[in-house]
Amino acid sequence: MAFIHKRIVQFAETDMAGVMHFSNYFRMMEEAEHAFWRSMGQSVHATHDNKTISWPRVAVSCSYVAPVQFEEELTIRITVAKIGRRSLTMRYDFSCGEREVAYGEMKTVCCEVDQGKFGSIDIPPHIRALVGAHPSDP
Amino acid sequence: MAFIHKRIVQFAETDMAGVMHFSNYFRMMEEAEHAFWRSMGQSVHATHDNKTISWPRVAVSCSYVAPVQFEEELTIRITVAKIGRRSLTMRYDFSCGEREVAYGEMKTVCCEVDQGKFGSIDIPPHIRALVGAHPSDP
Amino acid sequence: MAFIHKRIVQFAETDMAGVMHFSNYFRMMEEAEHAFWRSMGQSVHATHDNKTISWPRVAVSCSYVAPVQFEEELTIRITVAKIGRRSLTMRYDFSCGEREVAYGEMKTVCCEVDQGKFGSIDIPPHIRALVGAHPSDP
Amino acid sequence: MAFIHKRIVQFAETDMAGVMHFSNYFRMMEEAEHAFWRSMGQSVHATHDNKTISWPRVAVSCSYVAPVQFEEELTIRITVAKIGRRSLTMRYDFSCGEREVAYGEMKTVCCEVDQGKFGSIDIPPHIRALVGAHPSDP
Repeated sequence: MAFIHKRIVQFAETDMAGVMHFSNYFRMMEEAEHAFWRSMGQSVHATHDNKTISWPRVAVSCSYVAPVQFEEELTIRITVAKIGRRSLTMRYDFSCGEREVAYGEMKTVCCEVDQGKFGSIDIPPHIRALVGAHPSDP
Repeated sequence: MAFIHKRIVQFAETDMAGVMHFSNYFRMMEEAEHAFWRSMGQSVHATHDNKTISWPRVAVSCSYVAPVQFEEELTIRITVAKIGRRSLTMRYDFSCGEREVAYGEMKTVCCEVDQGKFGSIDIPPHIRALVGAHPSDP
Repeated sequence: MAFIHKRIVQFAETDMAGVMHFSNYFRMMEEAEHAFWRSMGQSVHATHDNKTISWPRVAVSCSYVAPVQFEEELTIRITVAKIGRRSLTMRYDFSCGEREVAYGEMKTVCCEVDQGKFGSIDIPPHIRALVGAHPSDP
Repeated sequence: MAFIHKRIVQFAETDMAGVMHFSNYFRMMEEAEHAFWRSMGQSVHATHDNKTISWPRVAVSCSYVAPVQFEEELTIRITVAKIGRRSLTMRYDFSCGEREVAYGEMKTVCCEVDQGKFGSIDIPPHIRALVGAHPSDP
């Protein structure tokens, strides 16, 4: 089954149009992604063989289907769109009850972080196995 | 010439990785877009024939080329990617000095707003003329 | 017993110093306040006798005792500091495990909202009763 | 003369009440503070004698007099409220045209940062001289 993250829209996330600001969907995608990592016993900033591994974003997108309002509960469903040698693309489907709300993707690259410098590396086998066991986007 | 918007990266826009958080590029695109409308004597929430016209986003994307840090000055260059009958797609190129930093697009739809309901309408001729006189994305 | 709200620190809430940005404590106080209203079957934007009642902030403060980091869980404990005729002051104590982290107050005023105008009113008796039954700040 | 920082209210800074969200006044105070440091040729994260000096906040407050809306220009006036041995308290007065909007204070402590640990130190004489030459809050 796909990983599901739920979240209520907060007041500070709305704008003067009375709906959640479009930029906050990306913050929710990231929140859902981090909850997904935690559900597998990992952190998005994990240490492996004494090295810190992080996942900076290289490309993100979102399409908006219907607006959402303060105190509505969003359900964010995560599926794996693509596992590359060094990159990982996840898809995020937002719904609110029966209503489709938005969908987006984030492509991240597996990087070793050393004193503020990011260098891309092959995805470690144990992470590839964990993510690969997760449902992929059809 | 393309419309240019400049902005210093603020402390609250950085994250623990020491760089500007990826979601803030979208807030900067929107800031640049609104400054672009103002430069043409318009507001993104304009009143025309007693009706309020607004431009909700339907699809946005961003690709990240290099990170930016606190107090660096970003230059955002706006070009018109596509003018449809009811939609407008703008491209945003971010640079920092000579360094290319990121680029993105936002597709917005011209809507009449009436008591919190959005209804798409044809782009009014005077707005089409203003935007059409602006350099398009090659 | 005092109302308790728990929340994990999100990545986008950290800054380049590696800790949660000081402004986000206020967003968390507001989140906790709104969860508190919901726990009493109310919304911070409630309709009563066909009028919308809202609670704009008139004065807020926060003192920072120790920093918090990404993925740490904060516990926010709400107590009533003062119920005036038209105003309500709540105290928010932030802790992280055994560690005291921060504390703050927010004074809000009961207002009737009519077409974007705020006018202060006496706190309705049913709301006064609900809040008055809540533990007060010693 | 007092240091002045001007800033237009951005769309993403508004909330569903149609006005700037109360937490964003703190982000603007910080922006104004950092512009103030830059105006004196300093950065809020300066290196002095091979040590990084930073100014974490220990207590902040804000009082709200009148709301502000999208695209209104705020003027933020900074004065020195108190220079202690290790701490600095600045006052921030927000206005919008002739209208008083809000006022706040932020108390910061001079710290040496070493590998993520903050240790308070006496304010270096050259910084004390720079700030001391600035108008104080009457």
